[in-house]
Amino acid sequence: MGSAPLPDYRVLADALDETDADAFVHVGDAADPNLRYLTRLSDAVTEYGFVYVDGEPILCAPPALDESAFAGTVRTEALDDPVGRRVVGVLGTRLDEGSTVLVPRHLPHDAAVYLEQAGYRLESTPAVREARAVKSAWELDRLRAVQRAAVRGMQRARTVLSEASVEDGVLHWQDAPLSTERLRRQVNATLVAEGVVDVSGTRIRVDPNSDESTVGDVATELPASAPVVITLEPRGPHGYYGLLARTVVVDSDGGWERRAHVGVESARRVALGELEPGAAIRWVNSETVAEAGSFGLSAPAGDRVHGVGLTRRERPSLADEATVGTVVAVKPGAVDEKGTVSLADLAVVTDEGCDLLADCSTSLHP
Amino acid sequence: MGSAPLPDYRVLADALDETDADAFVHVGDAADPNLRYLTRLSDAVTEYGFVYVDGEPILCAPPALDESAFAGTVRTEALDDPVGRRVVGVLGTRLDEGSTVLVPRHLPHDAAVYLEQAGYRLESTPAVREARAVKSAWELDRLRAVQRAAVRGMQRARTVLSEASVEDGVLHWQDAPLSTERLRRQVNATLVAEGVVDVSGTRIRVDPNSDESTVGDVATELPASAPVVITLEPRGPHGYYGLLARTVVVDSDGGWERRAHVGVESARRVALGELEPGAAIRWVNSETVAEAGSFGLSAPAGDRVHGVGLTRRERPSLADEATVGTVVAVKPGAVDEKGTVSLADLAVVTDEGCDLLADCSTSLHP
Repeated sequence: MGSAPLPDYRVLADALDETDADAFVHVGDAADPNLRYLTRLSDAVTEYGFVYVDGEPILCAPPALDESAFAGTVRTEALDDPVGRRVVGVLGTRLDEGSTVLVPRHLPHDAAVYLEQAGYRLESTPAVREARAVKSAWELDRLRAVQRAAVRGMQRARTVLSEASVEDGVLHWQDAPLSTERLRRQVNATLVAEGVVDVSGTRIRVDPNSDESTVGDVATELPASAPVVITLEPRGPHGYYGLLARTVVVDSDGGWERRAHVGVESARRVALGELEPGAAIRWVNSETVAEAGSFGLSAPAGDRVHGVGLTRRERPSLADEATVGTVVAVKPGAVDEKGTVSLADLAVVTDEGCDLLADCSTSLHP
Repeated sequence: MGSAPLPDYRVLADALDETDADAFVHVGDAADPNLRYLTRLSDAVTEYGFVYVDGEPILCAPPALDESAFAGTVRTEALDDPVGRRVVGVLGTRLDEGSTVLVPRHLPHDAAVYLEQAGYRLESTPAVREARAVKSAWELDRLRAVQRAAVRGMQRARTVLSEASVEDGVLHWQDAPLSTERLRRQVNATLVAEGVVDVSGTRIRVDPNSDESTVGDVATELPASAPVVITLEPRGPHGYYGLLARTVVVDSDGGWERRAHVGVESARRVALGELEPGAAIRWVNSETVAEAGSFGLSAPAGDRVHGVGLTRRERPSLADEATVGTVVAVKPGAVDEKGTVSLADLAVVTDEGCDLLADCSTSLHP
């Protein structure tokens, strides 16, 4: 397997210049988004390290790494040592005692102790987290691919729901009650057939008062006339997340959820219309909430607009501006004692405004 | 959703007693196995914290948590503050300055700095990592469920391979060449239909010299007469991993791989025969390698026996002993220029010896 194109390390060079520091260090495993961004390694089970010093990206590789997987310098000595000690070994020949080393605030405590014991002064930097906000062409390709998979997963959910029959007010499909868990597994099978590797973010919700984070072996029967909110946050093989949410009612009585859906669709149009270079995320967020409010709808708690990438929630945040190349989630919604109506999409900010990463019907009908 | 049964926190109480410390603290997100073990939360996107003090388990909850998801004390104030500061707030009313606080070695650096600035002395403890080795009945149920899903996934791989035809030495299935990636997606669809949420650990390997960690958009065509190694490490909704590996040849010429397979099966029997309470893992490992060696086979690099649970590799390690309730991977294998033959299973150590978490044919034929 060849290596993925490395990110532009200029952000690290700039951060070192600005703070008069001498090296950047991070330690973690494949679950750490900053380290994944810096190395593009997608599957390291054990801890490993990254050092940027003298303009050179250096990997303190995990055991059994195919060295061609990283396009920078690969160091494989002392594999059994704690990674913090290996990192100190790499720095030792290049830095003087008392040098300042920049680290992300999540650096594991033991690695920090190794660095401090070696006489380095640690300073925390948000540089990597900030740099991750603007996606490269390579990253956008990965984000579009996983978002297209999400669209296929949503289409599968619509197919199953449209095939379902109603018995005693509850949905049945293929001769058995259709639970949230059965529908979730059908959607997940489609997602992974499209190349997704992590479907833990697939949520099927019917109870307006249920916890949005409910996953796993909860198996509620799906009522025919209540809104079903389907939220997909699949992760692709390189670590990038999609986000797509739709609300569907099989047997709508034309009541609250139809009016709510019209308002939420309108809020979605407003959000996508306002999202452009220079727009304050907080303002796009408040316009989205206000538009739903003009229909008499209350938005769910939490921000409705934020960045997505190697994590489900990242920069740009409410305090940031949209810039070209940022990938932003737009999540208008309405919550009421009668139910929840939600829509969510990902858009990339362009010179002209923004483009959806993938297109998907917003219809309330399956 | 109700809460999962909490772990036995006696391990923390004992660690505090032994070190004369006053509290235990950890900070992280759902990807952190220690925090997942301590809280049983399976889907927190943002960072959160756990404090054990005065015999009380306290959750510094992530935003929007359903409070019934945690059976201990839930603290939701100052949700916008850094978690390290929130943890200090929880401790502040209970500890004197200068108190010792135990932390895992992976505590994020910024949380450590908050604790140290508040006047606490930090001491690193392996207590949680060690406690995770012995699984509770609730954990064993989750591990058995994900391992059963792995067996279904393996059966799917066998079905596809047995349906494949041979054209010019390459496998074809459903009117197209069968690539590693196509087979992987078929297996993954079965895994998630069985409730698995993370299939990033599914690997299909044919080249004996390829990197074991290769996943993603690599799409090698499958040769008919070479051994195909199928390794499944699925993660279930509560975070526990399965592990199952089998080696299959569609059109064996009866050569090296058959003889290797006989030796590797024998090594598997030896490993499962030796695994019992009190057995040194290093010894079970060396007996496994030696048995394959008695057939003239070279084992792959790395340990062939180790614990599995909330991570793919955990205690017991080579330096530990098997004890009742530990879940151990047994991974005999043979590597040669002609190919690789591997088998892998999970077993739980019992009073009498060990039991496979799930049964699966070891046949070399699909």
